Amino acid sequence: MLQHFRITGSARYLPGHKIESEELDARLGFPRGTTFARTGVQTRHQALAPENAATMAKRVIEDALASARTDLSGIDLLIDASLCLQQPIPCNAALIQEALGPAAAGIPCMDTHASCLGFFAALRTVNGLFASESLRRIVVVCSETSLLGVNWSEPESACLMGDGAAALVFERNPSPTPCALAMETFAEGAHLCEVAGGGHRLPSYAFNKAIESRYRFRMDGKALHKLASRHLPALVQRVLRDANCSPTELDVVPHQASGPAIELIARRLDIPRERFHVSISEHGNLVSASIPFVLHKVRQEKPAGSRILLLGTAAGYTQAAGVITL
Amino acid sequence: MLQHFRITGSARYLPGHKIESEELDARLGFPRGTTFARTGVQTRHQALAPENAATMAKRVIEDALASARTDLSGIDLLIDASLCLQQPIPCNAALIQEALGPAAAGIPCMDTHASCLGFFAALRTVNGLFASESLRRIVVVCSETSLLGVNWSEPESACLMGDGAAALVFERNPSPTPCALAMETFAEGAHLCEVAGGGHRLPSYAFNKAIESRYRFRMDGKALHKLASRHLPALVQRVLRDANCSPTELDVVPHQASGPAIELIARRLDIPRERFHVSISEHGNLVSASIPFVLHKVRQEKPAGSRILLLGTAAGYTQAAGVITL
Repeated sequence: MLQHFRITGSARYLPGHKIESEELDARLGFPRGTTFARTGVQTRHQALAPENAATMAKRVIEDALASARTDLSGIDLLIDASLCLQQPIPCNAALIQEALGPAAAGIPCMDTHASCLGFFAALRTVNGLFASESLRRIVVVCSETSLLGVNWSEPESACLMGDGAAALVFERNPSPTPCALAMETFAEGAHLCEVAGGGHRLPSYAFNKAIESRYRFRMDGKALHKLASRHLPALVQRVLRDANCSPTELDVVPHQASGPAIELIARRLDIPRERFHVSISEHGNLVSASIPFVLHKVRQEKPAGSRILLLGTAAGYTQAAGVITL
Repeated sequence: MLQHFRITGSARYLPGHKIESEELDARLGFPRGTTFARTGVQTRHQALAPENAATMAKRVIEDALASARTDLSGIDLLIDASLCLQQPIPCNAALIQEALGPAAAGIPCMDTHASCLGFFAALRTVNGLFASESLRRIVVVCSETSLLGVNWSEPESACLMGDGAAALVFERNPSPTPCALAMETFAEGAHLCEVAGGGHRLPSYAFNKAIESRYRFRMDGKALHKLASRHLPALVQRVLRDANCSPTELDVVPHQASGPAIELIARRLDIPRERFHVSISEHGNLVSASIPFVLHKVRQEKPAGSRILLLGTAAGYTQAAGVITL
């Protein structure tokens, strides 16, 4: 397949309030150093009022547009790919348009969701839309406030997460280059990583304190890792074959799920560890924002034309891998 | 733009439990006939256990695949475009894959959201993906259980809604035909139609009975209709121009928002009322399932090659219009 988009702008943002691992150790009664050793996350940032998902989204969209030397008048579609919903209705993208103000009026708004791989689903969508429609620019934004949803009684998952946002500006690629974008879902893992309550299976209005944990994030990291070990290598191999390239010539941007998980996946895939761009220690698992957040940094460091291997795992269980050109 | 997809299968389903308007009149203390006169909805169906969004989705997907003379092994992507989330995590499509059973394992799952126009956003996505990727078939499913989320103290909106599901099977169009698909969002209307609580702005775990109405659907129908009257005619005109066709040669499938709203829009657009396919009286506002639900019927009645004008409005405020070929 061909890559019909170019990334022409990007930005990322971490909210002001920092939480260090030692602070969590103390709060949770762990020996100093436990949280970092388990998660690989030293610092996570939290959006506290007046910061929230909409203010972070506004900021990264404006910065990304500036870096692409355009403004809201140059945008033909706004896709929000965040996992964290601001409200059940309307979609996140419409609430972000509201935060952007009247200059954004009229821009079509939609969301794509695939848990931590929402950005990947958006990327496939963007690639398709540039192949099928005459659009000037599409903005994809991921703005995550997952610390609002964690369960501190389950520190294995809670201590992994961090708030943050990233946005990318896409334009049509006048000379499409080969690329590969592939996803797979194995719903045998649908409940290994979930928020059970808050949708229509267990509505918000059925909430009571006794079942609060069902309304918060839970994850069985070990079982998910087993699924990833079983299924991800074959998908990555397929994508490398489809894109006709060897991992030694690529920079790898993995979803920053957890420090140990990235190390294990690097070994399992037999890709040199030094090709992996890993910054989870500085920000934690940024959910869907994780891949675009790291991609922004890679764009600063690598020349245009660099090929990037994207890969990740998500609730679902969903996995994705792709090769794109910067 | 070109239409890169063909619809090769479809199905729709209404759950077993019926609620007649006279029953609502009695329950709400209205004179007999009030609910029907206000909403244009005679009967709405409700998914009661053991029926739910996943069981309805499974049913329409299996029926749609049978009508396309294929099965799950022929599907390369499952897109859920429902507004009603089953759980905050994982995405609806993964939970539907779970309901479909092991034969569906591996099928990539993602959701698209644009409130009542989620199906329209999915349609643009499908069109793009057939232009950019080698896919055999994509299934789009909308399975809505909105009666779980209505507020019976606001009968103007509650009495409009009905549960139901629809699925379409798409294949690559070997001879792409002209089409048009356009959306616009005006976030000045972001709070005219919303569920405020249950996302991260007002979390589920902040629920208490005193603010239950904030966790349920509310809609200012009059204000939304004003926005639609101001913005929708221009979008429909643009789409008709882009697709180079006159409304007199088209069948119109509007989002079945409310009986009176459809009548007003038909007049405002100056399109002959008899071109409109309207069945809201039999099922109510099926949210995102509304357009594919009616499209399924139109496919039974009209020959292949018929051109269809799709149009609708949604929370956001988002509006959409498109011309496709059956």
